[in-house]
Amino acid sequence: MSRVYNFNPGPACLPEAVLREAAEEMLDCRGTGMSVMEMSHRAPAFVAILQEAEADLRALMGIPDSYAVLFLQGGASQQFAMVPMNLARNGKADYLVTGSFAQKAAEEARKYVDVRVAASGEESNFARIPDVQGLSFRPDADYVHLCLNNTIFGTRFAALPDVGDVPLVGDLSSCILSEPIDVSRYALIYAGAQKNMGVAGLTVVIVRRDLVRDDLPPQVPTMLRYSTHMKADSLYNTPPCQAIYMCGKVLRWLKGLGGLESMAGINRRKADLLYSYLDQSKVFRGTAHPDSRSMMNVTFVTGDKARDAEFVRYAEQSGLVGLKGHRAAGGMRASIYNAIPMAGVQALVDCMAAYEEAQA
Amino acid sequence: MSRVYNFNPGPACLPEAVLREAAEEMLDCRGTGMSVMEMSHRAPAFVAILQEAEADLRALMGIPDSYAVLFLQGGASQQFAMVPMNLARNGKADYLVTGSFAQKAAEEARKYVDVRVAASGEESNFARIPDVQGLSFRPDADYVHLCLNNTIFGTRFAALPDVGDVPLVGDLSSCILSEPIDVSRYALIYAGAQKNMGVAGLTVVIVRRDLVRDDLPPQVPTMLRYSTHMKADSLYNTPPCQAIYMCGKVLRWLKGLGGLESMAGINRRKADLLYSYLDQSKVFRGTAHPDSRSMMNVTFVTGDKARDAEFVRYAEQSGLVGLKGHRAAGGMRASIYNAIPMAGVQALVDCMAAYEEAQA
Repeated sequence: MSRVYNFNPGPACLPEAVLREAAEEMLDCRGTGMSVMEMSHRAPAFVAILQEAEADLRALMGIPDSYAVLFLQGGASQQFAMVPMNLARNGKADYLVTGSFAQKAAEEARKYVDVRVAASGEESNFARIPDVQGLSFRPDADYVHLCLNNTIFGTRFAALPDVGDVPLVGDLSSCILSEPIDVSRYALIYAGAQKNMGVAGLTVVIVRRDLVRDDLPPQVPTMLRYSTHMKADSLYNTPPCQAIYMCGKVLRWLKGLGGLESMAGINRRKADLLYSYLDQSKVFRGTAHPDSRSMMNVTFVTGDKARDAEFVRYAEQSGLVGLKGHRAAGGMRASIYNAIPMAGVQALVDCMAAYEEAQA
Repeated sequence: MSRVYNFNPGPACLPEAVLREAAEEMLDCRGTGMSVMEMSHRAPAFVAILQEAEADLRALMGIPDSYAVLFLQGGASQQFAMVPMNLARNGKADYLVTGSFAQKAAEEARKYVDVRVAASGEESNFARIPDVQGLSFRPDADYVHLCLNNTIFGTRFAALPDVGDVPLVGDLSSCILSEPIDVSRYALIYAGAQKNMGVAGLTVVIVRRDLVRDDLPPQVPTMLRYSTHMKADSLYNTPPCQAIYMCGKVLRWLKGLGGLESMAGINRRKADLLYSYLDQSKVFRGTAHPDSRSMMNVTFVTGDKARDAEFVRYAEQSGLVGLKGHRAAGGMRASIYNAIPMAGVQALVDCMAAYEEAQA
C-alpha cells in the first residue's frame, strides 16, 4: 500500500525523511558496521547519538543549563508516580484536571501526596479549559500539575496559570515541540515521545536540577528516582537506544525546518485550515470550546454516531486513517502533529467537503 | 563499512535477516501504509504483532497457559524492584549472589524485604557458581532469586537449586532462548530483550498467574504492578511498540531455525569451539571455572592488561568488535548470543590464533 495520511493520536505519524534515513542505516549506522540497535549503549557511537539528541533538544527548546534532560522509559503513566515520589516534601500537590490523562495523573498522585483539585474541566465534559485567571494554589504545595494539551478532548491551555513560587509540572506529551515555550515557567516537563518527538518507549523529562534530590524515602525504587538517571546521564542501565536514535532524527529534522518558530507557523496554518472548515461546515462541528482549542488534536462530530462512523470509513477509503475519536470522547479526532504536512490537512478538508457535498 | 562481527554483551548482534525485513517494512508495515512506529498500539495491525510475538514465545519456550507473558519497559533493573514489590507476602526473600546483576537485584530488594544471601560467588570473584547441592532456603521465603547466566563474569548455573515449594525467580536476560528450559521450574522469569530476544527498551516477564495479586500496598505504583499489565494484556499504556515488533521478528527467525533445540545445538558448537581453543591456547585462558562456563558470554584474559588491550584493538582491525571485557571483570569477553553465527566464532578463533602466532 502507498503511504497514508496518518492522523493517529500516538504512536503517530513520523516524518518520511526520518523513516528513510533509519531504513538506510539499518545495517550500518554511522560507519560502525552495525545497526543502532546492536550498539553497546556505552560505545562512543551511541553516546554521541544520545548527546546530540540532548544538545538538539536543548537548542530547539531553549532549555537552560540549570535543567537536566533525562531519557527514560515507562511513558507518561510512569511519570504520574515519579513526579509525586520525587517532588513531595510537604506531601501536598495541586492538580488541574482538564482531561483523562490529567485525571489519571491526579489519581496516581493520591498514593503519595494529598491531592487538591485546583480546577476541573469535568462540568464541560472536558471541552473547555477552566479560566486560569483567579485560580489559587496552596502556597505550601510541593507542585502544581497540569497537562498542557489534552489529546483525547482536543483542548489546551492557551495561557499558564500564575503559580507564584510553587513549582509547575507540565505533561507536554501531545504538544511538546509544536511551538516555542518558556521552559523556565516550569519546574519539570515530561513527555512521552510517541506523539511529537519520536516513537513509543521513550519518555523525556526536563527537570530543574535543584529539585532532584537524593534523600527520598528508601522505598522509592532506584529506577524511579530522577537522581539515578541525572547522575548517570540517562545511562544508569540500558536505555531505549533505538527510540533515542529516532528522537534524535526527529529533532534534527525540526532543526532543518527552522526550529520551533517555523514549526509553530506551519502548525498554526494547519490548525486554522481545519478549524475554519469546521466553523463553516453544515455537517461537522468542532467539540472543543473555541478558547480552548488544541493546535495538535482537532476533535469534531457530525452529531450522529452512525454518521461519524460512516465518515471515518469514508476517509479511510481515501487513505486518511486514524480519525476515529477516543472512546471517552466519541466522534472524530484529527491529530495533526508536527509530522503531518499541510497537504495532509488539506486532503482531510477536501475529504470532509466531498463527504458533505455527497450528503447534500 | 561492511557488517562487523559484533560480540557486544547487550545491546547485541541481531540476525541480519531481521534487520533487512525491518528496513524493507519501514515505510509500509503489513500493508498499512505506515511504519510499525506510526501505528496506534490499539490498532488491529499492532495488536496482531503483539499477539503473534506472545504466541511464538509461548510455543518456543513451552510456556504453560497458567503463566502470563508481559511486555514491559524499564529493563531488568526495574524488575529488581518489581519482583519484591509484587511477590512479598512474608517479607523475606533468598538471593543467590553470583554476579554483578544478581548483587544489584539483592540490594534493591532490601528496600522491600528481608534479604538473605543463600549463596555467594564472591569468594571466587564470581568466576564460579556455588554448588547448588545442599543449599538451603527459608521455607517461608516469598521467593528465591537467581540470575541464571552472568553476563559480566561469563558463568551460568548448570543446574537449578531445589527450592522446594518456594517460588523460584530467574533473571534470564542473557540466556533466554539460547536453549530449551523447563518454565514450570520457575514462578517468574524476566529478561531484558536486548541480548537474545531483540532490542533495548523491552523487558519480558513470564509469571505464574496465581502469583499476580491486586492486594499490594497502595504505594506500589500502578505501572510497577504486574496485575496492571496482566489485566490489560500489556496494553495498559503505550508499550514499546517497535521493540515488541523486533522481538517478534527474532522469535519468528528462531522458529525458522527449528526452535530452541536447534538453536541450543548451534550454541553448544559455538561455545565448544571457543572454549576448546582457549583450553589449548598458550596466550589466552578462560576465566570462568569449567563447571560454571556460560554458553553465551565467554570471558578470557591473556594475564597481561596491556596485551589484553592490544588484542582487543587487533581484533577490531579484523572487524571483530565488542570484545572488551566489562570494567568489573577486565580482559576480554565474547558474547556469542543466538544471532552470532558459527562463522563469527570461527573468525574470532582464527583471529586469536593469528595473534598468538604473531606473538610466538
